[in-house]
Amino acid sequence: MSYVTHLEAAIDGTRLPAREIATLHDGRPLWVRYDLEAVGRAVSRDALADRAPDLWRYRELLPVDDDDAVVSLGEGMSPLLPAPRLGEALGVPDLWIKDESQLPTGSFKARGLCMAVSMAKQLGITRVAIPTAGNAGGALAAYAARAGMECWVFMPEDTPLVNRVEAGLFGAHVFLVNGLINDCGAIVKQGKETVGWFDFSTLKEPYRIEGKKTMGLEVAEQCHWKLPDAIFYPTGGGTGLIGMWKAFEELSTLGWLESDVRPRMYSCQSTGCSPIAAAFEAGERFATAPAAPHTVASGLRVPVAVGDFMILDAVRASGGAALSADEERIGEWMTRAASLEGISLCPETAICLGALADSVAKGSVSKDERVVVFNTGAAQKYVEVLDTDIPRIDRAAVDWSLIESGS
Amino acid sequence: MSYVTHLEAAIDGTRLPAREIATLHDGRPLWVRYDLEAVGRAVSRDALADRAPDLWRYRELLPVDDDDAVVSLGEGMSPLLPAPRLGEALGVPDLWIKDESQLPTGSFKARGLCMAVSMAKQLGITRVAIPTAGNAGGALAAYAARAGMECWVFMPEDTPLVNRVEAGLFGAHVFLVNGLINDCGAIVKQGKETVGWFDFSTLKEPYRIEGKKTMGLEVAEQCHWKLPDAIFYPTGGGTGLIGMWKAFEELSTLGWLESDVRPRMYSCQSTGCSPIAAAFEAGERFATAPAAPHTVASGLRVPVAVGDFMILDAVRASGGAALSADEERIGEWMTRAASLEGISLCPETAICLGALADSVAKGSVSKDERVVVFNTGAAQKYVEVLDTDIPRIDRAAVDWSLIESGS
Repeated sequence: MSYVTHLEAAIDGTRLPAREIATLHDGRPLWVRYDLEAVGRAVSRDALADRAPDLWRYRELLPVDDDDAVVSLGEGMSPLLPAPRLGEALGVPDLWIKDESQLPTGSFKARGLCMAVSMAKQLGITRVAIPTAGNAGGALAAYAARAGMECWVFMPEDTPLVNRVEAGLFGAHVFLVNGLINDCGAIVKQGKETVGWFDFSTLKEPYRIEGKKTMGLEVAEQCHWKLPDAIFYPTGGGTGLIGMWKAFEELSTLGWLESDVRPRMYSCQSTGCSPIAAAFEAGERFATAPAAPHTVASGLRVPVAVGDFMILDAVRASGGAALSADEERIGEWMTRAASLEGISLCPETAICLGALADSVAKGSVSKDERVVVFNTGAAQKYVEVLDTDIPRIDRAAVDWSLIESGS
Repeated sequence: MSYVTHLEAAIDGTRLPAREIATLHDGRPLWVRYDLEAVGRAVSRDALADRAPDLWRYRELLPVDDDDAVVSLGEGMSPLLPAPRLGEALGVPDLWIKDESQLPTGSFKARGLCMAVSMAKQLGITRVAIPTAGNAGGALAAYAARAGMECWVFMPEDTPLVNRVEAGLFGAHVFLVNGLINDCGAIVKQGKETVGWFDFSTLKEPYRIEGKKTMGLEVAEQCHWKLPDAIFYPTGGGTGLIGMWKAFEELSTLGWLESDVRPRMYSCQSTGCSPIAAAFEAGERFATAPAAPHTVASGLRVPVAVGDFMILDAVRASGGAALSADEERIGEWMTRAASLEGISLCPETAICLGALADSVAKGSVSKDERVVVFNTGAAQKYVEVLDTDIPRIDRAAVDWSLIESGS
C-alpha cells in the first residue's frame, strides 16, 4: 500500500477519497496527499542512494499501491548537466540543465504519464484518450501499450511531424484535428460517454502531477538536498512546475532539505502564447485565453490551463515570476545553447533561456546564483525548427574550399 | 591516471604505446589493454552500486587518464527492460530489451563518441570529422560541441531526415554526399591532410570500442553478474558487438562474473546489406562489400567494416552466429514490438527481432533461455519508416464512428 491518505480539491480544499477513479472537483484539479510522517519513518533520504536510477526510487512519495500496477519504461534520474559556457554567456556561471530529453520517447512527458497509466491500471481502466500539443501523445501511447490499454490521441493538424507519427507506432489510434489542443480536449471530454475512455487531459486526473513531482525530487537529490536559487521551466499546462513546488513542500515537511530556502520558480512562455505571464503581470489568479496563440515551441501552444491558479500560486509563493520571452529568438537560443553545451535542446527550453537572459538583464537573477533550466524534450523531435538547408558534396569532385569554409 | 598499459593491433598483436594519437595498424583497428590486476585491486564490483548512474561508474575500465578530459552528457545506465509479451509472441519469454534510445541524442552512438571525444580532448585534438550512416554524426556533433571542438559530418544524401538536421544544431559543419558511408569515409580520410581534422571513422581510433564496451558492463551489472544466454545486436560497423565481447573478457579476467559461460553473440543485418552474415556463412574471416546495399535501417547500411574480422572472431568464439533478417518485414516488427511493449524501437532492432524469430524457429535459441536484444536508437529518429497517413477529424463535425473504429 502507498502512503496516500486522500485527495484534496485544489480550489477549495475539499477532502475526497483516494483509491477510486477521480477527475476534477468543481472543474478544477486535485492534489494527492500523503501521510508524510509515516513516509519519514519508512525511508530516510540517504537510503535512496542505493536504489535503482529511475523515478521509482521515490516509491514512498508516489501514489501506486500495488507493485504489479507499476508501468515502467525505466524513466527518471535524468542528468543534471553543468552548462558553464552557456552560463558565462548568459551571465550566470552556475547554470545547470536538467536534461529530460533522455527519458522514454524523448521528453519529460514520460514522468507524468507513467504515473497516470500506472494508477489507471491499478484502478482497472483499460481505454484511455488524450488531447496533446505534441509530446504527451507519444508518451501516453507508449505507456498505454506497455500496460496493454487501448489508446486514442488527438492533436492539432499542425503538430510537429515526429509527434504526429510516433504515437501510431505504439498502436494508438491517432487523429489530427483542425484546431488547437483545447479543441482536441473537447473531443476527448465528449468521448468519455460516447466511446467510454478515461480522459487523460492535463491535470484532469490527479496522478500526472505526482509523476512530474519527481523532477523536483531528483533536482533536490542531485543538488545534495540544497535546492537551487532559481528554476526556469517552460509552461504549457504547467503540471511540472506545480509538481516540483509540491515536491519541495513535501521534502521540507519530511525534513530532508538542508535549508528551508526554496527556489524562485520562473514559468516561461512565448510571446506568441503567454496567458500565464499575462495573468501574473495583471495580478490575476486565473488566466485568459489569448486570441491567436502561435509558437513553434509546440508544447507551449496551450491557450487554456485548467491549473492556471496552481501555477500562479506556486510562482508567487516562491518569489519567482511568470514571464514571456521573444518567440522570434527561439531558433537563435536553441542553436546557441546546443552549440555551446552539446545538449539536444528543444524550442520550449530556448524560451526559458530567453526569459533567463531577460531576468539577468533586469537584475532579478544575479550572477552568483545557482540556476536550473529544464530541457523538456529532445531537439530531434522538432525537425521543422532545424535547418534543412544542408550543402552537398559530389564524391567525384570534392569541393574542399566549401568544406573548409564549413558551409 | 587510467589503468591502460598499451594499445594492441587486432590483426597481429603488435604492441603500441598508449597516451599518444593512434589510428590503425596495417589498416586494421587497435585494442586498448589494461592492467586488470591493478583494476581489481582498485575497485570491487560491489563498490559500483554506490556510483552515479552513468557509464563513468566503470572509470577504472575506461581509458581516460585525466578527469578534466571527461566530456559527458550524462550517458549510460540505459534501462534493461523486460519484454514479456513480445517474448511470449517470439517463443522466448525471458526476453529483455536494453533500451539505448534513452541516451543523449537518442542512440547508442553516444557511448562510443563520448569516449572518443574525451580521449581526443586529452590528446589535444581540436578538429574532428566523421562519416556517418545517421546517428553517429549527431552524437559526435553533440560531444564535439560540449568539448569545444570544431566538427565536420559527412553523410549520404538519403540519410534519414532527423539525422540530416540534428548535427547542424550542435554547430557542426554538415555535408550531404551522393554516395554511401564509405564514400563519406573517403572524404574524411582525404581531409586529414587537406583540412587537418582527426578521423573519427568507426574503429579508426581505438576508444569508441571502450565506450561501447560499457553496454556489456551494464548488462553484466544489471543481470547481477550472470550474463544472459544470447545477445542479439544489430551490426553496421560492429563496434558494439566487439566492445561487449571485450567487456565480458575483461570481467572474466577480473573474476567479477558469477559464471564463466558467456552469451552467444548474434550479429544481425538486413537482407538488403549483410556482408558480415555472408562472410560467416562462407566461413570467411573478412567480408566482401555487397553490390547494391539498401535498407531503411540506415545504421546497417554499411557495406565495408574495417573490424569485420573482429566481429566474426567474437561471434564464432561465442558460439553465436552472424545472421541476416528480412528487410521487407522491418515495419512489421517495429510496430509489433512497439505496440506490445511500448518501447521506441528502431528499424535496426526490428532486424534483430526478425533474426531472433528465425533462430527460435530453427531451434538455435531455446524457449528457456534469457535473451537480450539491443534497441540502439529511438524510433522518433526514423520518421520515414513511420506511418504518416493519419486520419483527420473536423472539430465542427466530429465523426464518432471513425474514432470508435480507431482508424
